[in-house]
Amino acid sequence: MGIVEIIKKKRDGGVLSEAEIHEWIGKMVKGEVPDYQSSALLMAIFLKGMDREETKILNMEMLHSGDVVAPGTFGDFVVDKHSTGGVGDKTTLVIGAIVAACGVKVAKMSGRGLGHTGGTLDKMESIPGVRCDLSTDEFAEKIKTLGIAIAGQTGSFAPADKILYALRDVTGTVESLPLIASSIMSKKLACGADGILLDVKYGSGAFMKTPEDALELARVMVKLGEDCGRIMGAMITNMDVPLGANVGNLLEVFEAMDVLEGRGPKDLTEECKELAEGMLILAGKDPKEAKAQVEEALSSGKAYELFGRLITEQAGRVGELEELRTYFKEHGIFENGYRIEVCAPASGVIRRMDTEKVGLTSSFLGAGREKLTDTIDPEAGIHFRKKTGEAVREGEVLAELFTSSRPENLEKASEMLLSAMEIGAGEAFENPGTYATILPNSGKV
Amino acid sequence: MGIVEIIKKKRDGGVLSEAEIHEWIGKMVKGEVPDYQSSALLMAIFLKGMDREETKILNMEMLHSGDVVAPGTFGDFVVDKHSTGGVGDKTTLVIGAIVAACGVKVAKMSGRGLGHTGGTLDKMESIPGVRCDLSTDEFAEKIKTLGIAIAGQTGSFAPADKILYALRDVTGTVESLPLIASSIMSKKLACGADGILLDVKYGSGAFMKTPEDALELARVMVKLGEDCGRIMGAMITNMDVPLGANVGNLLEVFEAMDVLEGRGPKDLTEECKELAEGMLILAGKDPKEAKAQVEEALSSGKAYELFGRLITEQAGRVGELEELRTYFKEHGIFENGYRIEVCAPASGVIRRMDTEKVGLTSSFLGAGREKLTDTIDPEAGIHFRKKTGEAVREGEVLAELFTSSRPENLEKASEMLLSAMEIGAGEAFENPGTYATILPNSGKV
Repeated sequence: MGIVEIIKKKRDGGVLSEAEIHEWIGKMVKGEVPDYQSSALLMAIFLKGMDREETKILNMEMLHSGDVVAPGTFGDFVVDKHSTGGVGDKTTLVIGAIVAACGVKVAKMSGRGLGHTGGTLDKMESIPGVRCDLSTDEFAEKIKTLGIAIAGQTGSFAPADKILYALRDVTGTVESLPLIASSIMSKKLACGADGILLDVKYGSGAFMKTPEDALELARVMVKLGEDCGRIMGAMITNMDVPLGANVGNLLEVFEAMDVLEGRGPKDLTEECKELAEGMLILAGKDPKEAKAQVEEALSSGKAYELFGRLITEQAGRVGELEELRTYFKEHGIFENGYRIEVCAPASGVIRRMDTEKVGLTSSFLGAGREKLTDTIDPEAGIHFRKKTGEAVREGEVLAELFTSSRPENLEKASEMLLSAMEIGAGEAFENPGTYATILPNSGKV
Repeated sequence: MGIVEIIKKKRDGGVLSEAEIHEWIGKMVKGEVPDYQSSALLMAIFLKGMDREETKILNMEMLHSGDVVAPGTFGDFVVDKHSTGGVGDKTTLVIGAIVAACGVKVAKMSGRGLGHTGGTLDKMESIPGVRCDLSTDEFAEKIKTLGIAIAGQTGSFAPADKILYALRDVTGTVESLPLIASSIMSKKLACGADGILLDVKYGSGAFMKTPEDALELARVMVKLGEDCGRIMGAMITNMDVPLGANVGNLLEVFEAMDVLEGRGPKDLTEECKELAEGMLILAGKDPKEAKAQVEEALSSGKAYELFGRLITEQAGRVGELEELRTYFKEHGIFENGYRIEVCAPASGVIRRMDTEKVGLTSSFLGAGREKLTDTIDPEAGIHFRKKTGEAVREGEVLAELFTSSRPENLEKASEMLLSAMEIGAGEAFENPGTYATILPNSGKV
């Protein structure tokens, strides 16, 4: 069967066979299927869907289009966590340290930020000296000795996904459940972890706008992982509001350190604890034991200490990081940085926030990139004094904007941020936290 | 609005505005929209449709992407006929001669055959000496003096359609009503005719498989033409069976001459008369008058005579054509040609025919082309002794295959033709003729 026939079959709502998906992905990776045919097929998949079996086959074809690290490569039982992309999401830094401090090995291969979402690698590399370009051997060695490493993807994982993702981005075919699920899982399954916890976001800054859609995506991805013999878990978390108070690379590192010291924002701390407990459960601990160990790792200072060792191990200069943090705490600004306050234009309650716009504002200040080749300003970002659900008075400071590289963008960024926030009448309210959790041997869903 | 936003709007079932369609087509023709974006949008249009207004805008954008010959350029009132593509469809040669003999000017810009369908230009050029590469001036001059000319498209008509048609062909997005309608009409409206009669085919060898779909397509195209101030008509005709007994270029010219002499096959003769009457009605004659004039043009020999003059006028050697025709009639074969008989494998009734396969068989013998650069064997083709609905006995000759260039293909072509015909039990039956007619000031639909 030729590619045109495959496109027509999906266009007419047919179910693609293993041979057909294999032909498409195999030839595409070899450059034998032109982009215009793949993009027509992507739109047909977007509009006609794929069933679980097709999604599984697509996932496996994409996974095996590149290098695959076998589970066991990094030790006995290694866990990984993947977030579907958030704004102000610094949980990886926190929970990696907690879980490793609890004696469970963490192998975190991470990506860079693009568009409105941040990336863990960018946060790590905002710390003076830190490098994440570890070889597979270095990565494995650090996991064995320290219990954790955070690296960029080694090898060439899922090259089929690289082609498809680039096409989806420019053809309006991103927000498709089977395409998102296979894109994420084909890369994650290549990374060698035995247990994978998925943090699936819903809300204005996420692929999935509703918790129900996010849960459905989570279920599909959990099944894809289980089909490959992995221990899978997922949490459906809120991205209608940024996580914690800080957005931006160093600002998020500072906040992660606050959580590890036991004085981070409540929403962020709670979510980090839940995720860390989930990862311990994947490693075989029972929920009560997991909860107790997480509390102990935090209150004893073991997790904070392990974070410092992780930074040191990856060539980071912890002393310099502490100096930057202290200076910022004392002066409310970076040493050679710029700062502006964003004030409430009216009194009322912050009724909702467009977190995608929040991410774009931070990016516009220098914290993110539009293209993968853009450079990042580690000191750029946003500190929220008020978030969704809180009452504000006219003229009150809602947030502070920081940049050390683009002071000319501060005014415009202030307008962007205000346009992302809706202030209106009504009572103050609490933001919903985790919507659902999927864990093995657990009643929770 | 960027192209990605336009794609997303259509993907989500939105109605594209004039500005959006203008941006897409305008930038695409300038090479500023990559094929992979246009193909994703084409698939979204295929699956989500376009309303009449969007189709009209798309048509106008495609029309104005290239040269446009203004109505009036070729004289007072000029009519054109367009077939959506058929197998064995030699009506243009017949009705052009009839209509011109009735004193109505015919400006026929025509295409070449591709795939399973034949093209009028190829039929014309199978006649010794004939040339159709007329300049606009030559074309206009011949219409003024003789009343008819048949030429390839002069100028660069609807380049946007060239790009889109090539993409649709390889991305499974051909059979879409708004895309077919705007593709056909954007080229036809550029040709300078005042009246346009559409011959919209339905059946196994046509874009539209059912007469209902063909009628809907006809209605949309008629409206597109009327929106541009043209006098429009349409007939919905049967392409579940080849028209007449012959398929192939010279074979079809011979058969057209038979009709003009009053001894052609009944189905072809009837359809030619109906189309010719339709063209006369477009030129303002009333139906009765049109019918009488067509009968008179045929019975008086005026139409046959005009056909000879048309060939002579376009540099054809009528004497050689008559010699070829006489030799073929006497010997049942071309002078240096090859022939094979295709016999019925069983007794029964020909229940149906896949006319697309019939066209491909003829093409495989040398009568058509797969690529526009392929050369044509004017003597290749098929003569049917039996067609759909007729009773046959085992071993009886169903058809004869001819080729002068590819004798090695005769056996395979015979198998192809048999596989296109379904012989089974049942009573003999008549094939349905014209399904519907749309004409101005006429009760018929």
